[in-house]
Amino acid sequence: MIGHRAFPAEPWQLRETGLNSGLLAQTESLFALSNGHIGWRGNLDEGEPYGLPGSYLNGFYERRPLPYAEAGYGFPESGQTIADATHGKLVRLLVDDEPFDVRYGELKSHERVLDFRAGVLRRDLEWVSPAGRGVRVRSVRLVSLTQRAIAAVCYQVEPVGGPAQVVVQSELVANEQMPARAGDPRAAGVLQGALVPEEHAAREGRALLIHHTRSSGLRVAASMDNLTDCAVDCRLQAESWPDLARLTVTARLLPGQPLRLVKFVAFGWSATRSRSALRDQVAAALSAATGSGWDGLVAEQRSYLDTFWDHADTEVDGDIAIQQAVRFGLFHILQAAARAEGQAIPAKGLTGPGYDGHAFWDAETFVLPVLGYLAPDAVSAALRWRHSTLPRARARARQLGLRGAAFPWRTINGEECSGYWPAGTAAFHINADIADAVIRYADVTGDREFEAGPGLELLVQTARLWRSLGHFDAHGQFRIDGVTGPDEYSALSDNNAYTNLMAQQNLQAAADTASRYPERAAELSVGDEETAAWRAAAAAMYLPYDPDLGVHPQAEGFTRHQVWDFAGTPRTRYPLFRHYPYFDLYRKQVVKQADLVLAMILRPDAFTPEQKARNFAYYERITVRDSSLSAGSQAVMAAEVGQPGLALDYLREAAQMDLADLEHNAGDGLHLAALASVWTVLTAGFGGLRMREGIPHFAPRLPPALTRLSFRIRVRGSLLVVRVTGAEASYAATDGEPTQVGHYREVLTLAPGQAQTRPIPPLATAARATQPPGRAPAGQPAAREHPGQPG
Amino acid sequence: MIGHRAFPAEPWQLRETGLNSGLLAQTESLFALSNGHIGWRGNLDEGEPYGLPGSYLNGFYERRPLPYAEAGYGFPESGQTIADATHGKLVRLLVDDEPFDVRYGELKSHERVLDFRAGVLRRDLEWVSPAGRGVRVRSVRLVSLTQRAIAAVCYQVEPVGGPAQVVVQSELVANEQMPARAGDPRAAGVLQGALVPEEHAAREGRALLIHHTRSSGLRVAASMDNLTDCAVDCRLQAESWPDLARLTVTARLLPGQPLRLVKFVAFGWSATRSRSALRDQVAAALSAATGSGWDGLVAEQRSYLDTFWDHADTEVDGDIAIQQAVRFGLFHILQAAARAEGQAIPAKGLTGPGYDGHAFWDAETFVLPVLGYLAPDAVSAALRWRHSTLPRARARARQLGLRGAAFPWRTINGEECSGYWPAGTAAFHINADIADAVIRYADVTGDREFEAGPGLELLVQTARLWRSLGHFDAHGQFRIDGVTGPDEYSALSDNNAYTNLMAQQNLQAAADTASRYPERAAELSVGDEETAAWRAAAAAMYLPYDPDLGVHPQAEGFTRHQVWDFAGTPRTRYPLFRHYPYFDLYRKQVVKQADLVLAMILRPDAFTPEQKARNFAYYERITVRDSSLSAGSQAVMAAEVGQPGLALDYLREAAQMDLADLEHNAGDGLHLAALASVWTVLTAGFGGLRMREGIPHFAPRLPPALTRLSFRIRVRGSLLVVRVTGAEASYAATDGEPTQVGHYREVLTLAPGQAQTRPIPPLATAARATQPPGRAPAGQPAAREHPGQPG
Repeated sequence: MIGHRAFPAEPWQLRETGLNSGLLAQTESLFALSNGHIGWRGNLDEGEPYGLPGSYLNGFYERRPLPYAEAGYGFPESGQTIADATHGKLVRLLVDDEPFDVRYGELKSHERVLDFRAGVLRRDLEWVSPAGRGVRVRSVRLVSLTQRAIAAVCYQVEPVGGPAQVVVQSELVANEQMPARAGDPRAAGVLQGALVPEEHAAREGRALLIHHTRSSGLRVAASMDNLTDCAVDCRLQAESWPDLARLTVTARLLPGQPLRLVKFVAFGWSATRSRSALRDQVAAALSAATGSGWDGLVAEQRSYLDTFWDHADTEVDGDIAIQQAVRFGLFHILQAAARAEGQAIPAKGLTGPGYDGHAFWDAETFVLPVLGYLAPDAVSAALRWRHSTLPRARARARQLGLRGAAFPWRTINGEECSGYWPAGTAAFHINADIADAVIRYADVTGDREFEAGPGLELLVQTARLWRSLGHFDAHGQFRIDGVTGPDEYSALSDNNAYTNLMAQQNLQAAADTASRYPERAAELSVGDEETAAWRAAAAAMYLPYDPDLGVHPQAEGFTRHQVWDFAGTPRTRYPLFRHYPYFDLYRKQVVKQADLVLAMILRPDAFTPEQKARNFAYYERITVRDSSLSAGSQAVMAAEVGQPGLALDYLREAAQMDLADLEHNAGDGLHLAALASVWTVLTAGFGGLRMREGIPHFAPRLPPALTRLSFRIRVRGSLLVVRVTGAEASYAATDGEPTQVGHYREVLTLAPGQAQTRPIPPLATAARATQPPGRAPAGQPAAREHPGQPG
Repeated sequence: MIGHRAFPAEPWQLRETGLNSGLLAQTESLFALSNGHIGWRGNLDEGEPYGLPGSYLNGFYERRPLPYAEAGYGFPESGQTIADATHGKLVRLLVDDEPFDVRYGELKSHERVLDFRAGVLRRDLEWVSPAGRGVRVRSVRLVSLTQRAIAAVCYQVEPVGGPAQVVVQSELVANEQMPARAGDPRAAGVLQGALVPEEHAAREGRALLIHHTRSSGLRVAASMDNLTDCAVDCRLQAESWPDLARLTVTARLLPGQPLRLVKFVAFGWSATRSRSALRDQVAAALSAATGSGWDGLVAEQRSYLDTFWDHADTEVDGDIAIQQAVRFGLFHILQAAARAEGQAIPAKGLTGPGYDGHAFWDAETFVLPVLGYLAPDAVSAALRWRHSTLPRARARARQLGLRGAAFPWRTINGEECSGYWPAGTAAFHINADIADAVIRYADVTGDREFEAGPGLELLVQTARLWRSLGHFDAHGQFRIDGVTGPDEYSALSDNNAYTNLMAQQNLQAAADTASRYPERAAELSVGDEETAAWRAAAAAMYLPYDPDLGVHPQAEGFTRHQVWDFAGTPRTRYPLFRHYPYFDLYRKQVVKQADLVLAMILRPDAFTPEQKARNFAYYERITVRDSSLSAGSQAVMAAEVGQPGLALDYLREAAQMDLADLEHNAGDGLHLAALASVWTVLTAGFGGLRMREGIPHFAPRLPPALTRLSFRIRVRGSLLVVRVTGAEASYAATDGEPTQVGHYREVLTLAPGQAQTRPIPPLATAARATQPPGRAPAGQPAAREHPGQPG
């Protein structure tokens, strides 16, 4: 089912066997390389043709005005949009004066491979120029996971069938020309000429460009060093202009005489540091990289990834496409987070400009829970970034008349960038989502230093927000009115169940954590009066329930609204928000993405198994999954309520999201949350993984199509290996202290190195839930059709 | 209490005794002249200084883009804004080469008088130039109520104390320079240079300018003819350029030798007619006007107004300021509506550019009910304008996925111009408000031709909207979810009581009226199935009620929301919407303007007297009156629930709204609805007037401060005169058939010419309702302070 024919299902790599010019933007995203600090879209070395050029630096943005037809108090007046940084991956080639361009001449072969273990993008091609000169080009590109300021390209060209005059141009380009973008609101605004030149230089193989952004005033230095290796003499020329630095290598080659160019590129950027400081910073990074050399960088990269996969690998038997997708997803979320140190993890990582490069709740709710088990340092860093934005979040809370901190719905630098407040500022749940990530990280890792430090402060400031946002009603219930939950087809509702339950957890955890660290709490001016107020609000938190239907409304009154006319909605009018007004969507029962279902996953204690089953069936009928965030959550809950077949279909959809471009916007960047959810469905869905006070509990059950599932998680310093088949599950702790795990209702104690195996109880048959017409998961046969998705 | 010292309280005029340069913008609005077709702000003849220049033609607008930080389906992409038309009132004066400008030299006296009976603005001044030359200037300006394309100025200058060389320049100016505007969202956007010149000509006393608007493509022709009368010889020179036509009159005058210039100005504008057609149109209008001559125009104007006041005059003894205010208000709403024929009545009439010159529900709900009793032809014309926009309203309904017609929240040409949909498109009540105006007009006038024609179609198309907007719930109740009621400090609520009650009336009236005109109904494809569906929805309409509090929530769940922290809100932070986010306002119990209270006035049958009293007291405590629309409604209901003293205080506030500039934006134009409400409070409040099936019912009761109230209304062809004192009320029908009226629970039959008198029953004492701190009505001593309002 999965993927284009262009991408064969292979376990450890994503391979494109020929160049499909219609998929350029998508493949640029899929083949993007990043370390979380630098992001290079998978553009062709020679720059053109492209879907969308892109070189990103985390936190490097330009300001743009946010206009309103009718403004209102507190509407953000300017936003941030990810800026296209100095383009460093460009290597142009001319063969006998003919520019190498796949659109001309004859492309005899073209293959690109993203290698999840090596952490490189390889390209091999053979081309015959319009004049009949043949060349073979091999390039390998990496963005270093070990030297975070460094990216590099190894570019090799060799004539085929006869001699050729070859010119290779290795460049740095600022303000590269961008294509005009379509009107999809999820795409980023285009900013042309955002970089103002400050300095340029070129000498021998090295060159430097320094710019600053016109409005946000961020300074960026890009520098390159090029090493040339050739059997024959070649001529080198270095030049620079304000927006261009170029090294030109010219040689006359015979077959068997390759020209090899290794290009190291270093980036530095800062809001505060001087031009000379940045100049020195990139020079130092380049020196270190050239010291390591190309082979050194490649070896470090593999070693870094070997360690990662040792702790993170997940094996699936029975569906090679899912096997590929889970590794592809883990590889990309690692790329997004590994070295983000001090910056956000945007919804699309650094793979494209979609959503203006903003970070949302996606990171805390969908990406960090995965990384917490596999790469906990990245989670700590991501939450420390949130912590670093507390002054802005507290200022925003004050502006809104609230206490504590109000984190932005979307941002790069911590300031609110949402220009539509009913689905932005009103989505206060992001504050509880951040708290949830703090609680979850501390629970999984046991990191006391974090918990007592930034963790406690995040919990305290968000608890203060909730206490001031809600109020006690005449019946003594604690209500949170007029907010927007995860489902963006509702807005400004009273007592959104997800929000209230997550706020309840937030308030309770803040009180409990403050009690555990009384001195630290005192530094934050948290006293017994305040923790008591949090506990009282948590204890009295109102959860709406509809006794007539026996289900929980996702918000007060929701189940009394009219049900959307699904039968009268043509398939071409999805996603609904592009064809129907918010007015209509908000007032009817139609769910864009898991909301109450997500609450049942994140707050499993708040619902009985019967309630989960009834609620799931109810919301399945009205959920259209117009968000990439939804399929994974629906899969996990389908598995929990005994519908592993439906869960598998949703999993397949989540796995296809970017590989088959189900939302037709993978070209703007990958959907990191959907990529992460493949692992989440395998572990929390088919593995039944739920943490309860430091102990992982499992309730594994595979759908028949999957014959074996094996995964690893690190909990409180122990590496657990879980292996599941149709009949049984085994648990082993490969290192660390004796460890407890739950298997259904039993708790096992694992001694290091000794596996314990338990049978899987029989499945009580449950009727498969139904979806709105045409909205069954894409994984299912006869599901909705997707252009460009060959069966 | 009322008014600035600059405006003495006088019964038939508004007089400014000196020129207060700080009040220029406000006085330009107060002294604006209009006939509903042409509007001239009360700028000084010589153009400068000004608060805000303005010459408007009803329906003459420019397009402007409506930008969004995040766009959505169905958001209007372009709006309309009232355009400043060719400036025709300008008459400049030079005395011995010194331009007359009140900012220089010595202004020895300056008086302006707006005469409500003559329908002219008079100005008398004496000025001594910096060089010591004295002149007396007298000007009289009118916008003709009888010749709707014509405005005119009679300008007379005479030297004082010695001879003077006098130059008078009579001009037409296009694209006059506009001052930059402040950031208040209620102000209009400024469009500079919106008029593209097409033609200009000048010969002898006549001149012509033709332009079209750059984006909306409306063509405007302005032409003037000038008659000069002088004891001595004077020299005339006529010139024209694309944006300027000028007649220059030069004379050397002695004291006692006045120079008198009469300037007739004609306007024609059209979206479709040719340049030559417009040229001929203004020439014809000018010929008619010069044929009438200045004295003829003045006489026609007074005769028109004599007729109006014969049918409309309202006398109040005991408070001369209220006496002045009610006539000032009636004069301005007549000016806004008299000759609007085929165009809207904007919220500010043609007195200023506020709210972009848009028409809202204000006309149907606040202005037309007054005019229905006093100038019913203007109501018919206004509703026929709404009818003419049905194609656009039907297209909008289709775009929103609804049936029938969805009229715009704000518009000039019938297209939705609201750029913030939660307080725009979602305010669907405007459709029921239009229906209410139809029902009320037909009931008061008995105009069957209108009822069977545009009236029925308006009722049918709005009923179709409501039927498709609401739905039956599981308990068989008809619900209307996710809409915004009149109170703009709530939005997107379920079952707003006002909306549901007005929709109920709309559905019922559509069914009833269709049944009365079955052939006409059939032409509109209304059959028995459809009327039955309307009746069923009306019968099942859900009205929320809070049994714990014994009050009606203004929308479902409203009374469970947190009450706004009024005690913690400084007075400087009103109006709240300029200092608090919508997010916060929407989720709390705080009311911008009468919502449920207005429902109790417009649907008095839906509430018991006890419910009215309890509801009024409840909403008084949380209503902040941040809208000029509110005080009048609160006054009417205060009177009904037996609090005439509170009603009087609110009346004084409504009367002061523009005269004392309570909202600090009278300079952008007058608040027509507030002006109209002065009459409404006197008649519906202190007179207790409510229509029930063609019969006016009264329940008169004066507050002690008012000793006598007399007013006239025309109902079904009969002119009724009602006279009320503290002890009794008398009713007389001066013409027409024998007429029924209600007095409290009694129904009287009046023979023409014979008054009947009845005593007023004693008042049951009711505790005075309380308002939020600092939000008691301005009419009350120790009320909120208003800068610029001397006690």
